[in-house]
Amino acid sequence: MNVFNQNHSIRSLSNVIPVAQSLAQQFAQTAIERDKVGGTPKHERDLIRQSGLLSLSIPEQFGGLSGQWQDIFNVVKIFAQADSSLAHVFGFHHLLLATVRLFGNSQQWQRWYQLTAEKSWFWGNALNPLDKRTVVKKQDDWYEFSGKKSFCSGALDSEMLIASGVDEKTGNLLIAAVPTSRSGITLYHDWDNIGQRQTDSGSSIFERVRVEIKDMLLDPGPLSTPFSTLRPLIAQLVFVNMFLGVSEGAMLEAKRYTKTESRAWFLSGVEHADQDPYILRHYGEFWLELEALRLLNKNAITKLQEAWDLAENLTEQQRGEVAIAVATAKVAATRTSLDITNRIFEVTGARATQASLRFDRFWRNVRTQTLHDPVEYKLQDLGIWALNDLYPKASFYS
Amino acid sequence: MNVFNQNHSIRSLSNVIPVAQSLAQQFAQTAIERDKVGGTPKHERDLIRQSGLLSLSIPEQFGGLSGQWQDIFNVVKIFAQADSSLAHVFGFHHLLLATVRLFGNSQQWQRWYQLTAEKSWFWGNALNPLDKRTVVKKQDDWYEFSGKKSFCSGALDSEMLIASGVDEKTGNLLIAAVPTSRSGITLYHDWDNIGQRQTDSGSSIFERVRVEIKDMLLDPGPLSTPFSTLRPLIAQLVFVNMFLGVSEGAMLEAKRYTKTESRAWFLSGVEHADQDPYILRHYGEFWLELEALRLLNKNAITKLQEAWDLAENLTEQQRGEVAIAVATAKVAATRTSLDITNRIFEVTGARATQASLRFDRFWRNVRTQTLHDPVEYKLQDLGIWALNDLYPKASFYS
Amino acid sequence: MNVFNQNHSIRSLSNVIPVAQSLAQQFAQTAIERDKVGGTPKHERDLIRQSGLLSLSIPEQFGGLSGQWQDIFNVVKIFAQADSSLAHVFGFHHLLLATVRLFGNSQQWQRWYQLTAEKSWFWGNALNPLDKRTVVKKQDDWYEFSGKKSFCSGALDSEMLIASGVDEKTGNLLIAAVPTSRSGITLYHDWDNIGQRQTDSGSSIFERVRVEIKDMLLDPGPLSTPFSTLRPLIAQLVFVNMFLGVSEGAMLEAKRYTKTESRAWFLSGVEHADQDPYILRHYGEFWLELEALRLLNKNAITKLQEAWDLAENLTEQQRGEVAIAVATAKVAATRTSLDITNRIFEVTGARATQASLRFDRFWRNVRTQTLHDPVEYKLQDLGIWALNDLYPKASFYS
Amino acid sequence: MNVFNQNHSIRSLSNVIPVAQSLAQQFAQTAIERDKVGGTPKHERDLIRQSGLLSLSIPEQFGGLSGQWQDIFNVVKIFAQADSSLAHVFGFHHLLLATVRLFGNSQQWQRWYQLTAEKSWFWGNALNPLDKRTVVKKQDDWYEFSGKKSFCSGALDSEMLIASGVDEKTGNLLIAAVPTSRSGITLYHDWDNIGQRQTDSGSSIFERVRVEIKDMLLDPGPLSTPFSTLRPLIAQLVFVNMFLGVSEGAMLEAKRYTKTESRAWFLSGVEHADQDPYILRHYGEFWLELEALRLLNKNAITKLQEAWDLAENLTEQQRGEVAIAVATAKVAATRTSLDITNRIFEVTGARATQASLRFDRFWRNVRTQTLHDPVEYKLQDLGIWALNDLYPKASFYS
Repeated sequence: MNVFNQNHSIRSLSNVIPVAQSLAQQFAQTAIERDKVGGTPKHERDLIRQSGLLSLSIPEQFGGLSGQWQDIFNVVKIFAQADSSLAHVFGFHHLLLATVRLFGNSQQWQRWYQLTAEKSWFWGNALNPLDKRTVVKKQDDWYEFSGKKSFCSGALDSEMLIASGVDEKTGNLLIAAVPTSRSGITLYHDWDNIGQRQTDSGSSIFERVRVEIKDMLLDPGPLSTPFSTLRPLIAQLVFVNMFLGVSEGAMLEAKRYTKTESRAWFLSGVEHADQDPYILRHYGEFWLELEALRLLNKNAITKLQEAWDLAENLTEQQRGEVAIAVATAKVAATRTSLDITNRIFEVTGARATQASLRFDRFWRNVRTQTLHDPVEYKLQDLGIWALNDLYPKASFYS
Repeated sequence: MNVFNQNHSIRSLSNVIPVAQSLAQQFAQTAIERDKVGGTPKHERDLIRQSGLLSLSIPEQFGGLSGQWQDIFNVVKIFAQADSSLAHVFGFHHLLLATVRLFGNSQQWQRWYQLTAEKSWFWGNALNPLDKRTVVKKQDDWYEFSGKKSFCSGALDSEMLIASGVDEKTGNLLIAAVPTSRSGITLYHDWDNIGQRQTDSGSSIFERVRVEIKDMLLDPGPLSTPFSTLRPLIAQLVFVNMFLGVSEGAMLEAKRYTKTESRAWFLSGVEHADQDPYILRHYGEFWLELEALRLLNKNAITKLQEAWDLAENLTEQQRGEVAIAVATAKVAATRTSLDITNRIFEVTGARATQASLRFDRFWRNVRTQTLHDPVEYKLQDLGIWALNDLYPKASFYS
Repeated sequence: MNVFNQNHSIRSLSNVIPVAQSLAQQFAQTAIERDKVGGTPKHERDLIRQSGLLSLSIPEQFGGLSGQWQDIFNVVKIFAQADSSLAHVFGFHHLLLATVRLFGNSQQWQRWYQLTAEKSWFWGNALNPLDKRTVVKKQDDWYEFSGKKSFCSGALDSEMLIASGVDEKTGNLLIAAVPTSRSGITLYHDWDNIGQRQTDSGSSIFERVRVEIKDMLLDPGPLSTPFSTLRPLIAQLVFVNMFLGVSEGAMLEAKRYTKTESRAWFLSGVEHADQDPYILRHYGEFWLELEALRLLNKNAITKLQEAWDLAENLTEQQRGEVAIAVATAKVAATRTSLDITNRIFEVTGARATQASLRFDRFWRNVRTQTLHDPVEYKLQDLGIWALNDLYPKASFYS
Repeated sequence: MNVFNQNHSIRSLSNVIPVAQSLAQQFAQTAIERDKVGGTPKHERDLIRQSGLLSLSIPEQFGGLSGQWQDIFNVVKIFAQADSSLAHVFGFHHLLLATVRLFGNSQQWQRWYQLTAEKSWFWGNALNPLDKRTVVKKQDDWYEFSGKKSFCSGALDSEMLIASGVDEKTGNLLIAAVPTSRSGITLYHDWDNIGQRQTDSGSSIFERVRVEIKDMLLDPGPLSTPFSTLRPLIAQLVFVNMFLGVSEGAMLEAKRYTKTESRAWFLSGVEHADQDPYILRHYGEFWLELEALRLLNKNAITKLQEAWDLAENLTEQQRGEVAIAVATAKVAATRTSLDITNRIFEVTGARATQASLRFDRFWRNVRTQTLHDPVEYKLQDLGIWALNDLYPKASFYS
């Protein structure tokens, strides 16, 4: 009954967390160095491939692990504690599989589920709804994609892409699943940002790329039903779990440092830094923020799973409930992660700024990724809900 | 099988929430007036007596409703949405029943459970561990309590008191259950504070009050086992649910006002105040804070119930887990309730300060009760936990 | 050369601060009781009349003290430390004198300056630009004012009013100075709000009130020149100094209480509350906020005085500079005063909530008055300035 | 009357600001690249040497510009807007000159003033009072310094050092001025931290370094008089002006980006990002914080200058007043700079995280330097002052 090839470390769902933790430990050993150099973490991506975790969200009948959303986000979080770039591309891989499931028909997603599980494919992103530069021309029985794209996270070293473009005639958004190696696609190694440095979220160019009709996600198509609009909510929860993981990772590193390296301030009247009343106060607030975030996250994941299980029966109102839970977790994750990654320095002290520790990477990573969409408008969504009893309008961002 | 007398509105646990809501509605109609005059809410206390809710925490076998802690705190919260004074004395009633359960032996609590259920007794507080003015003298086969006390919430119009005193010889804290009408006890109508104005949290004097040995809670006695140290955690959760209820009540009042009374600011460019971007931002933050608090509260209650069910088998470590969950909820409840009750005015505007609305009572109530014990030391407890992996030391405050 | 009658305590500008402090001390003795009862502080208003401070802003040549704006706001602040209602009506008196100066012609303001100084008149407010219910009909050589008004601070027990109405034909705002006793004016004793309880900011009705053309402020008229648009900035600085005074008064009361009444928390490890690290932290933040506010206030007053001295030569840009300085101080004053009046309880403790102290009045007073105009739009003004280099548009609120 | 050699750009005090601005512009052009590579900014240091600004704090009679503290800190701030590393070493140069003035006798400082002005010497830091590893042995008529040191900002490429050590016998701190080239001194190029990357704040080793008695600052010696304890206050104001400059520089960069690059969010309903209500709100808060900080800074500088001018006549109380003003500015500068450098990303958006802009350097720089001494203890100093009316105890940190 073992559906995995022999290279996979995971043979059942109960194995997922230990395997993820083991991978995270390996990532941690080189995270500082890889944050420095940027680029594609080829070795680590292959470790993920080999682990079998790329099949985590795929049902058993198609060769996967039948993981629930809680399992997937757990892995995202565990990875993010060590390396939020790998957490990002891993989370996006499953988001893109979900995209196929939500926007495509059953023939489509069954085929891709199966191929992905079988071949340990990594999916990458070339879908950016606000970037209108890629145009799609309908040809006889195929579609032609041409134009530039930005923010193509995880596209390099992927086997498959989810790509978007604007219909030349209608202006509608069209989405397709295409092999990364398809002729006409060029991915640039031009992602060099202050954070999330190994996500390869660079640009690409599509030059008259041919996409067969069978690879177009037209049925039901993007954001066409309450169920299909779960897609952005999954994306947002990938971020939430990244931010939560980074925050936890940062606090753990800080804690280790405070306990072993920090010195009591000469005016504090205590012997060890871990007794300083103000340092304890900071840790108390870290705990408070993290614990609230963990519960908000769990609540949102539970609601998402319920909605996912309802599938096509999901109503707009039920979808709205998930959207509010996700937006709440997203705002909390944004604030908490920025606060903790900034404040860990208050509890570690001046010497913790040495570059060899690279403690700033926690902040740089969340500072970068929290800008995916403006948190102020998530907060506004919550306000519209609280005051006017209206759910967020479904879009690629909420 | 109906264990309640005919006056009780509640005949089963499923009735609890509707009855509590119905009571809260009645309380709401006079809450403004009663906040103004202070004093004992005799009529409302009698309504609670008649409702049967005073037996909520008592097991069925002793004539009660076998309510879980979630049920009890739900009622506290529902009352607090309308009137946090009644929420307070109701919550304390069950805290004092739990005190008997935790500090006394089975003969003691079984008898008092039964009497309370049968006669709809209201228990009041005369236990204040930091107030050392009441002294206890051991006589032949009884104890004599003499001295002053402060902060005796709900003592007036109660049938039973939990009273504390300091052992004349050992300095140990001694606690007893005594009928409020016992000779020598004088309760003063001197509670006149800025908030929680109908909690009767005034002073009392005990003049050579005789307490039989059978009414002394010596076995196992106060804070003597991990199980018995759940007592302060229950007290803290009463506060958490009061603060949560007040916050929810305040937000609902503000919402009604913004929707129906507030005017759009002439520079806002919107037609109705409920579209103002900054007003929406405030409501978004209210939602975020409330939702986090609701989950932290639920988490703490769940952990408390598990610990309660373990009873004498509860370990120190398990107790520590509850303590952390409760302290986390307490800090969040303190901050959230102070923030929301202060900020509702930003979303309602200048005319909402008219005294007839008494919107300031929300803030006055939480401002008063959040000072029960300093929140900074709860935060420190969280810090000690997060940094040093130590649970809070059990005391009457954590 | 003494321009004051014998009843006045003040004979020169150097006398102003001591006299104001002496008055404030008298106000303080009854402030708690008067906060309770509300209504018109007739006795205290008469003390102000007798002090000569009502002539503070009037030039010597018209019988006044030639006080600078710094002097006037100093007195507002000193009064507010003890009683922000009296600070309010005192500040508004000078605002209304400035209104005559700014909106009227020299014959008008010279006459009223002289009469005010001579007779110790108190001016009250019946100008509310957002309240369109009072209509003005032009008759032959007079104007008729009819309609309701709200928020008429200091109108009761005043000798003169500044009243506004909407021109029946043009919809323009028309403003007049009228004796409070003029036939047809009814002032209601209906101000009963949670704060600023002795400002008499209630409603009034004008029934066919006749206003002579010589009492109409048409030349140059309201907000017609850069100089005349200083009026709202003066109003805002009255509030700033009220909020600053309340904050200082609240901190001083809290300090006295912490030093003499508060007890060290049993877990703090210190002997006196004034050594508690977290209590010190709160006071540190109080100081920081207050000191920043004091400097922002001083800066705004200095700029206002320079602009005032330029009079009709004031340019729009120079006016804009004052407006930014004032708005900055206003936002700071709002935040600081709400924060400190809420937080003083953290440093005093539970017993400081007793009603006899009425420590809540500080918060109730600033909570009420900070809603005069929404602080979010002041912050927006600052943002427009910082980002787009545009000064606030002059209105009755900025 | 020109006291400068021909290479100096500055010929009078009125020239200082334009020259500093011109230098800052040059620094700005390479700041991003130099932040990347770290190391010693030799070229830029030489530009500062040539400018004559190293003589800014030296009285004219010794060949300097007789700049006031306001002039010096202005230059620190202007440099910090472009490059806070150069601001740091420039500020420290003048701090070290002041150290000679404050801890040495008149023969000493007059000689070094003269030599510094004449030869455009750059002074570097080897004084670290909390680092006890360097020991001083008194020999016949000289002193021998041996041991390690950390945080030697600006020591590399300096002509003179201020060095500290612990007296082998008494444990007292001893301080000397020594030529950087003195035999036995090794300065390491080992400063590689997340921020302030070109301050060369690395380590050094002193191996039996001979210091003549005439170079020992024993008269009056460190922190021996109220006047001499101005030294740490000058150090703190160097930081304040660095943090202020960085904050201003960050806001200006953000402003430019928002105006020219940022896009309005698709849900905002506005055309340009510079009209977005939430973006304006952030800028409003930036302005508020900056303006408060500018005034607190100016106030502290004014008080420092007054104290400096009193010199040996300065009393402890007068010194205390300066200390409070400086500590207030320091806490504000810490909070403001961390907040603004973190939040500029909210107003610029995701694309502003590209590494070529290196917008994170603002945060990295202040995040590093704000840890010089823990801000919580500055806040405590303010609390002790506000509550207990006690000035901060003079030390090397307050």
